[in-house]
Amino acid sequence: MVNGTAAGGGYELALATDHIILADDGSAAVSLPEVPLLAVLPGTGGLTRVVDKRKVRRDHADFFCTIEEGIKGKRAVAWRLVDEIAPNSKLEAKIAERAREFAAGSKRNGSGKGVSLAPLSRTIDETSVCYGFVSVDIDRAARIATISIKAPEAAPPADIDGVVAQGAAFWPLQVARELDDAILHLRINETEIAMLVFKSHGEAAHVLAGDAILEANKAHWLVNEIRHYWKRVLKRIDVTSRTLVTLVEPGSCFVGTLAELVFAADRSYMLIGSRQGDNRPPPSLQLTAMNFGPYPMSHGLTRLQSRFQADPADVETAKDRIGSSIEAEDAEALGLITFALDDIDWDDEVRVFFEERTSFSPDSLTGMEANLRFVGPETMESKIFARLTAWQNWIFQRPNAVGEEGALRRYGTGVKARFDMTRV
Amino acid sequence: MVNGTAAGGGYELALATDHIILADDGSAAVSLPEVPLLAVLPGTGGLTRVVDKRKVRRDHADFFCTIEEGIKGKRAVAWRLVDEIAPNSKLEAKIAERAREFAAGSKRNGSGKGVSLAPLSRTIDETSVCYGFVSVDIDRAARIATISIKAPEAAPPADIDGVVAQGAAFWPLQVARELDDAILHLRINETEIAMLVFKSHGEAAHVLAGDAILEANKAHWLVNEIRHYWKRVLKRIDVTSRTLVTLVEPGSCFVGTLAELVFAADRSYMLIGSRQGDNRPPPSLQLTAMNFGPYPMSHGLTRLQSRFQADPADVETAKDRIGSSIEAEDAEALGLITFALDDIDWDDEVRVFFEERTSFSPDSLTGMEANLRFVGPETMESKIFARLTAWQNWIFQRPNAVGEEGALRRYGTGVKARFDMTRV
Repeated sequence: MVNGTAAGGGYELALATDHIILADDGSAAVSLPEVPLLAVLPGTGGLTRVVDKRKVRRDHADFFCTIEEGIKGKRAVAWRLVDEIAPNSKLEAKIAERAREFAAGSKRNGSGKGVSLAPLSRTIDETSVCYGFVSVDIDRAARIATISIKAPEAAPPADIDGVVAQGAAFWPLQVARELDDAILHLRINETEIAMLVFKSHGEAAHVLAGDAILEANKAHWLVNEIRHYWKRVLKRIDVTSRTLVTLVEPGSCFVGTLAELVFAADRSYMLIGSRQGDNRPPPSLQLTAMNFGPYPMSHGLTRLQSRFQADPADVETAKDRIGSSIEAEDAEALGLITFALDDIDWDDEVRVFFEERTSFSPDSLTGMEANLRFVGPETMESKIFARLTAWQNWIFQRPNAVGEEGALRRYGTGVKARFDMTRV
Repeated sequence: MVNGTAAGGGYELALATDHIILADDGSAAVSLPEVPLLAVLPGTGGLTRVVDKRKVRRDHADFFCTIEEGIKGKRAVAWRLVDEIAPNSKLEAKIAERAREFAAGSKRNGSGKGVSLAPLSRTIDETSVCYGFVSVDIDRAARIATISIKAPEAAPPADIDGVVAQGAAFWPLQVARELDDAILHLRINETEIAMLVFKSHGEAAHVLAGDAILEANKAHWLVNEIRHYWKRVLKRIDVTSRTLVTLVEPGSCFVGTLAELVFAADRSYMLIGSRQGDNRPPPSLQLTAMNFGPYPMSHGLTRLQSRFQADPADVETAKDRIGSSIEAEDAEALGLITFALDDIDWDDEVRVFFEERTSFSPDSLTGMEANLRFVGPETMESKIFARLTAWQNWIFQRPNAVGEEGALRRYGTGVKARFDMTRV
C-alpha cells in the first residue's frame, strides 16, 4: 500500500504492493520510468505487473506505458492503475482505514507471544561461511561453493509448546534462516562462484520428525510461518543464477524438506551402495508430506509436479512411497535423481562434470538453467521472476557475447571466446 | 516426423515435428546446436521444445543441452528425446507404418474434391500492394502501412455446396490468404515500417453472412480449414513486431471475424457519430460467434478473454450483444475499443499518436508490445512464439542499445539516442 504521486520508480514500487491509493491533489499522476521509450525500455517486471498483476487492459497499458505525463485521477482508477484516490486532506484517515481492513482480513489472528529472531551466528573467513547447522566451503580455484546442512543432533520437541519454547532455535526455522542467508551471501558477495553443491549429513530421523511437526501443526501460527519461510527460501534457490547440484552420499539426510534440494538442483548424483572402507549404510532418500504441496515453485507447481510433467502419475507413485527409504537405483527408477553412480565411477564422473560445467559461458548457463527450471505453466509470479528475467537480463548485451573476446565476435573464427566468469 | 541422426539444427527441426524416429546404426545420436555452451546459447525455442513440448525431465535436459556428443539410442527414447528408434534396415517400413497410423488418426476424413488454391492476384508498386479484397498503402515518410480490407460485394453462397463451388474465391478464404500474404510481405520486405493500421470498408451484412456460414458449417472439411486458416493468420498478426492500430471509421465493416483486428491491435480508435459533410451512418462494431472461440491466441485464450482478464464477466456481457450494432461510445463502455473520439478530436489525436509512436525505439516497442499482447497464462506455443521471443531477440545487443549512438550509451548524457528504425 502506497500513497501520493507515484511517477517512474515510485510507481514501479507501488506495483509491488497490494493496494495503491493515489493522493489526489488534482494533478497527481502515475507513470512508468523510461517513458516515452526514447531512452531504454521499461523493465518486463513493471510491464508484467501492470497487465498480469493489476490486470490493466492491454490497450490501456499500451497508452500508459508510452505517455510521459502519466495517468491521473479517475482514469487511473477506471484503468485499474490504482485502487482508489483520496484527497490529500483525507489521505491519512484513508490509509489507516485500509490498514485496519487488511489487518482484520488476515488469517494471522494476532494471538500468540511471538518468537524473537536473534541475529544469526555466522563466521566468515576466506574459504568458508559457518552457521549453526549450515556451512559453506568455497573452492575458489574450482569456482564451487559446497553448502552442507546438518540434521539436528536431538529429536525435535514432542509438542507444539516445545516448538514455541525453542523459537528461533527450532531446527527447521534456524536452518531456513541460515540457508537463506547463505544463498544471499553467495549471490551478492561471491559472483565468481559458478556452482552451488548441496550436501547434507546427520540423523535423517530427526529431520523427518521435524517434518512431521510441520505437517501435524500446520494451522499453528508459528508452524505456518515456518512453512512459508521454507517455501520462500526454496523459491530463492530456484531463481539463483548458479548451477545447482545435489550430491546424495552416505551419511546424508536428504529427506522430506531437505529432499527439495535434490529436486531444486539442475542435476543430482546419488551413490549406489557404500564406498570402499566406509562402513556407513548406503545413502537413501525419503519423502514426506512436505514434498507434495507446501513448497510450490513460483509457477505454482511443486518441484515433483514440475519434474514429472510428462506423466503426473509419477507424482502419485512417489507419494505412495512416503515413509520408505529409497536407495540410489530405486530413486533413479522413480525419477527422483538424475544419476545413480557406484563407487568406481563416482569420483571421475562428478569431477568431469564439475570441470566442464564451470568452463561454460556463465551468461549462457543463466539463460539455459532458467529455461529448464521453470518448465510447465507460468503464473504472474513466474512471469516476473523466472525464465524471462534471466533472458532479458542483458545476456546478449554483456561482454561475453559482444565484447572483443566474446562468443558472438569469435563464433566461427576457430578462436575460443574468453569469458568473464562472473554470474549476473 | 524425421529420421536418421539428428545433430544440431537437424534436431531442432525434429523438435518441431510430432514424431521423431531415430535411425539406429548403433551410433546415431541427437544433440542441440551450440553445445557445449562454449560458443553461444541454444535458442530458447529449442530449450522450450525439449522440456515443454517433449516433456523431457529438466535434469535430463540439463545433461542433454550441455553434452556435445549427444544422446544415443535407448537413452534417447527413455529420456523422451525421440519417440522410437528403428534399425536402418527397417526404417523405411517404420516410417510408412507411422505415416499410415497418423493419417488414419486424422479427423480429416479424406473425402471431398478439394479446392484449388490458385496463386493470389497481387500488384506491387512503390507505395502499394493490391489484392482482390486487401490493399496496402505505404507512407514511407510517416513509416506507416495502412491495410484496408474490403467486404464482399455480394452476399455469400446460400449453402455449403455454393461455398465449395466458389472455392478459393469464397470471401473468407480469399481474404485470409491475402491478409496472410500482406502481413508476411510487410514483415520481410518493409522493415522500416513502424506501424500497421487496419481499416475496412464495405457491406457489413455480407461479412456477417460469411461468419454465419463459417459457424453453421464448422464440421465441413473446407469450412474447418478456413476457420483454422483465419486462426493462424490472426496469430501471425499477434506476433508481428510492428505497432498494430485499428481505426474504426464510417463505412467500415469491423464485424465478427474482422472485429478480431480491433482486438488484436495495440490500440483502436473509433469515431463517435459521423464526420461533418459525410452522410454515411456512424461506424459500428458487431460481434459474432467467431469472436468467442474459433480464433484463440497462442496462449489459448480468445482475444476477448485476454482483453477482459480483469473480469471474465465482461466476456459474457459482450457475448450477450452478439448481433447488435455497437457504436463508438457503447463500444468504449463495453471495453471493445481503446478510445472513442468525435470528429473534432479525431484528426489531431490520431496524428499525434502516429507521430509520437513512430519516433520511439523500435526495439523497445518490440519488447513492450510483446509483453502487453500476451497477458495471462502461457502455453508451450506462447512460450516459444510470444513474449520471450521478442525479449531474447537481441533487443539489448542491437546497436540501438549498445551502439555509439544507442540508448544505453547515451542514457543520462542529455544527448538523445539515434535509432536505426528497422524492426526486427
